[in-house]
This record gives sequence, C-alpha cells and structure tokens, in this order.
Amino acid sequence: MAAENCPVRFGIIGCSRLAKKVTRAILLSPATTLHAISSASPEEAKQFAVANELPETVRICSSHEEVVDDPDVDAVFVPVPVGQHSRWGVAVAEKKKHLLMEKPGAVDLGELDKVLEACERNGVQFMDATMWLHHPRTAKMKELISDPKLVGNIGLIQTTSTAFIPRQFFETAVPAGKPAMETMGALGELGWYGIGAVLWAKDFHLPSSVTALPDITKSSTGVILSCSAQLHYEQDNTVGIVHCSFLSHLTMELEIVGVNGSLYLGDFILPYKEQSAEFNFTWMAKFVERDLGWNVKPEKVEVVNEVSQEVLMVEEFARLVQGIKAGSPPDVKWAEICRKTQLVLDSVMKSIEIGCTCVTL
Amino acid sequence: MAAENCPVRFGIIGCSRLAKKVTRAILLSPATTLHAISSASPEEAKQFAVANELPETVRICSSHEEVVDDPDVDAVFVPVPVGQHSRWGVAVAEKKKHLLMEKPGAVDLGELDKVLEACERNGVQFMDATMWLHHPRTAKMKELISDPKLVGNIGLIQTTSTAFIPRQFFETAVPAGKPAMETMGALGELGWYGIGAVLWAKDFHLPSSVTALPDITKSSTGVILSCSAQLHYEQDNTVGIVHCSFLSHLTMELEIVGVNGSLYLGDFILPYKEQSAEFNFTWMAKFVERDLGWNVKPEKVEVVNEVSQEVLMVEEFARLVQGIKAGSPPDVKWAEICRKTQLVLDSVMKSIEIGCTCVTL
Repeated sequence: MAAENCPVRFGIIGCSRLAKKVTRAILLSPATTLHAISSASPEEAKQFAVANELPETVRICSSHEEVVDDPDVDAVFVPVPVGQHSRWGVAVAEKKKHLLMEKPGAVDLGELDKVLEACERNGVQFMDATMWLHHPRTAKMKELISDPKLVGNIGLIQTTSTAFIPRQFFETAVPAGKPAMETMGALGELGWYGIGAVLWAKDFHLPSSVTALPDITKSSTGVILSCSAQLHYEQDNTVGIVHCSFLSHLTMELEIVGVNGSLYLGDFILPYKEQSAEFNFTWMAKFVERDLGWNVKPEKVEVVNEVSQEVLMVEEFARLVQGIKAGSPPDVKWAEICRKTQLVLDSVMKSIEIGCTCVTL
Repeated sequence: MAAENCPVRFGIIGCSRLAKKVTRAILLSPATTLHAISSASPEEAKQFAVANELPETVRICSSHEEVVDDPDVDAVFVPVPVGQHSRWGVAVAEKKKHLLMEKPGAVDLGELDKVLEACERNGVQFMDATMWLHHPRTAKMKELISDPKLVGNIGLIQTTSTAFIPRQFFETAVPAGKPAMETMGALGELGWYGIGAVLWAKDFHLPSSVTALPDITKSSTGVILSCSAQLHYEQDNTVGIVHCSFLSHLTMELEIVGVNGSLYLGDFILPYKEQSAEFNFTWMAKFVERDLGWNVKPEKVEVVNEVSQEVLMVEEFARLVQGIKAGSPPDVKWAEICRKTQLVLDSVMKSIEIGCTCVTL
C-alpha cells in the first residue's frame, strides 16, 4: 500500500472530556488511526484510554513531548487549554506533524500566528476543530445563501452560543478561574462559533467594524461569562450579532435574514441528532390579502448524513494530509478561516477594553 | 338595554391600508360597532368603505373633525400618520371619546404625553393597537417565563421585525419620504414591536441602558431603513437585542433564552395562521453522554384561538370602555406600556444622535 493510502496516524495531547468526540471520530474513520495519547498526568491518560475504550495498540505516553516526538505519529490533535495552544501547536509543526487544533485558535492573534507560521514553514496541514463547518447541512445552507434569488443580500446574521456552567466554577476552579489562562471565557469557548458563523455566511469576508455590546458579565477573576458583539459590514448593510454565555442553558441558534429569504436553526454547532439535521427556510414571506396571516410558513429542510460532522472533519483533514504525502501543498483555507475568526475575536476583546466602542478593521 | 351593554360605537379617522384589520375586527366583534369613518379625502373614505364592505349604516364623513364631533361615537381608532398622532389623539380625548391609537405612540415621548395627559384629564380609555399583546399565545408564553423552574433568569431576548419595502419608496414617496413625518422609519414601524417584546418579557421594567448599534441605514431623506439596538438590564444580566429593517423580507422572530429554558417563535407580531399559533419551548437542554447530540429537542406548544388577536384587542378595549360607563376608572396599564415603549424608542433615537453611545435610563 502506498504511503498516501495508509490511514493517517494520530497522536492526541491533552486528553480531556473535550477530546472525546474527536477521539471517537479518529477511531471510527477508516482514514485515520490513533497511535499515541498523553494527558496532563500519565494517570489521567490511562483513565482516558479506559473511559474511551481505546484499542490496546494505542501508546499511552507520560508526556506531550513523547507523543510529538514519536516518529510513527503523522498528525497531532491538540485539545490542551487555550493558553498552551501556541506552545504545543508550534512544537507539533516543528516536528513536521500535521496539526488539528482545538478551538479557539489561541489566546490572541499574535500567538495564533506563531502556530500558523510554524505550519507554513514546515509544510504541514493546519485545521482547527470547528466541526459544524464540515456538516453537509452547512453546505446545503451555503447553497441556499449563495443563490441570490433564494436569500439575496443578507441584512442580519444572528447567533447564540450558550451553555450553562455554574458560576462558582469560574470563581474557584483552576485553570478556568485564572484569567491568564482563559480571560476570553465564553467568548473563546462559545462566541468562537457565532463569530465563525457570521464570517461563514459572508464567505469569510471580514466585517468593516466590530463593536462589543455593553452587556458584559465577568467572574470575580475576570473571566467573561456572557457578552454580545456586533459585526458590521457597512458596504453590504449586513449586521452580525453574536451572543455567548455560560449563564443560560444550551442554545445554538443561527438566523440569517435576507432580502428574499431567511434561514433558522436551533442547533447549528452540534445537531440535535447525529444522523440527520434540519433547518427552516422561509422564502419571499409577506402577508396574505387583508394581512390575516402569512403567504408561507417556514419549510423544514432535512439533511441526512451517514457520517457525523466530527468524522467528516477528521476525514477532510486526513484527505489533505494524504494530498501532502502525494506532493500537494497544504491547503491554507483552514488556516485563513481560523485566523479571521481569531482576528474578529481579538477585535471584540479590544472593543471591550476600550469601553465597547467601535473597532474598525 | 343598559348603556354599558350596548356595543361600543367606533369612529375611525385616517382610513388606510393599515386600518383594514382593526376595521374588520370592529365589525366582527359583537362588543363593537362601526359608526363613522373619515380619510385624508372624502373620495378615499368612500373607496375604503367599498373595499372593506362596510355596512351602509356607517357614516362617511368629509373630515376627521366630523367623526370626532359626532355625539354617537364613543371611541375613535386613529390610524393617521405618526406625525399627526398627538394632534388627533388629543382632539379625540378632549371630546371625551375613548382612544385606540395606531402604533407607534407618537413622534416622541413629549408628543405622546400630550395625548396620555389629555386622556387622563378627560377620563377616557387609552390603548395603542399593538395586537400581539392580546393573543392567547402571548399569555401562554408569559406563563412559562414567569415560572422560574421553566425559564429562569433571562439572559437574552432577541427579536427581528423586518418587512421589505422597495428603497425607492422612501426616496420619493410622500409622506414617508418626508423625515419630518417619519424620521423613525423602520424603528417606529417595526422596531416598536421588538422593543415592546423585550419590555413584555421583562414585565415592563425599563432597561438600565439603551444603545443603538452602529449598523444604521438611512434613506437619502433621512428615514431609518434598518437599525439594531441593545436594551441592557444590568442588575439581571439580561440583554435585549432588537433588529428592524425595511431591507429584508418578512421576519418576526422572538427568542428568549433563560438559565433553564428558552422560547422561540418566528411570527410573534402576527401569527402565520389566524386560528392557531405555536412556539418552540426547550427545557434544560444539554448534551447527551459523549456529546453526540442533545437530551431534548424543542417542544412545539400550540395555542388555539377561536378569535383573532385584533378582535381580542378591540374586545379588551370595549370591556374597559364599558367598565368606565359603569363607573370604573380608565385602566392605565395600556398607557404605561405605550409610554415605556416610546421612552425606549426615543432612547434608541437619542443613542443614534450621539454616535451610538449608551443612553442611561
């Protein structure tokens, strides 16, 4: 079997609850295998192996370095805390391993750029683990948005990304309670998706300005628990509004309103069910004669997917890695998407710092 | 038949397309009759009578004064252009007629207060014609919001009120193109509903601050075509986000996200169908084991209503008028709701004037 047909051999550094889904995807996909893991402690790595029913062939390492140095590892998934992303991202790239990085990109754009530059310099593939971008529903929605007759110029993109975490967690826990590690809090954890959704809807064009809204809630340790932001595309008259919070129960709403049609879904980041997903599409809505009701109701568009979005993600990553093995250059699309998302996220942080005034991009 | 059991006799001044629904409601309800109408011109009034199949008993007046002066008119519905609300609202109240006023309240709070003071001084009932507040679905949603176990502290209230109107209309038409008449544009016409929905969700408590977002689009004549605003309840960590626009097709979304549950509906201002309405309710959402999906999907809550929201509105108005005839004082609840909505609307206008900075209430 030619090298490019062998499954991509993954290492995972920083095994935690967050790593479970991607781990399962790596095990499920015929395009990938899991070769080695490490965690904050060897004990934790062993527990992770048991809890996730890893095959006995998986090497359990006592340090992240061991995984990164392993010559039998082609690619590394890096779900370490955000504050360590750039350190480990660079380490992986310097060892000529391909890099699948947990989101958000890094603590700021400067740190992320260190990673992206290292990947470019070493000719390795970069991708962040934003799974919903790989769901066929996302492609189907893009198809509708791209047809000017169906949606047309977008006036509003509205997103919520909320998940309840008891407030005490941020007041006492380590490392979440240490602002040096995760000052971005809900903005990095959840707002990342909303910002990404606005960019995605706008074909990854950057907004002309970004403004944090004055409704910021922080923990006593300075971690953002809840905030909102506006992304403005002045030339197109498009406004993106992103709300993220640890203070509300789970919501993941995405709404796109255009001149001719609109989309709505309540589970854009992670579908309610694994095997199929839906969204509502409403087209050319107006009142019926005498304004007694509407001419249309939202139409349910169902997208069946045999394979879950995280498996599709690792398979896309593996496909690019195989391409590189066969002589193609790395695909910079994913680095660019990650970089733009981080740039907007940084702009929200900057707007917060300067009293929620407008940051021009 | 005692006076309080006779149907309330309505006059309508300023018959236009907007008046059709309330006219129909007055004709449908056994609690009300239509006695007299007037429009900008007598010819227009005659056309309105034909188009709306008014009974021959309805008096077609050649001026608004004639309707207001008619001793057989108990109450007047006033759908004149916003710039004339205060003039005609005061005129109606001074003639001791009860006042059902088209929304928004007036061009500003000062003008609205002239109307409300005239109503109070003359002991007549005031209500603005915001219909959705009278739908039983609205009451059902309030029931859920009021139960802290079901929704709990509200983190986010998000609303869209958009309806497409060709841009040329605002560049050339009269009176919409005359900023003196309707500078508020989409904010007054549509944003009124979104602002009202945030206030409604917060039991009509005023926000601590109001901030217009920098995405304002105006016509060449200065009419607001699209804008967004944030209403912040600092003490409760609640943010209300209101988007309104003439540049997108019809949407009326209301989303309320709390610590335990959330509501969503796509037709909050005017239900898709006249006889029944729905909303989605999601409770205690979280991921299932291994984050492969959600523990719940939104539950559809259906509310059947035999009578449409505009009929319920005129019947509530008639009930209060009958109460006054029987010796009760006017119910000031509706004046207070209208006044608070106008106050927030004025605050959005003020924030726009001062460069989208925060207006403290």
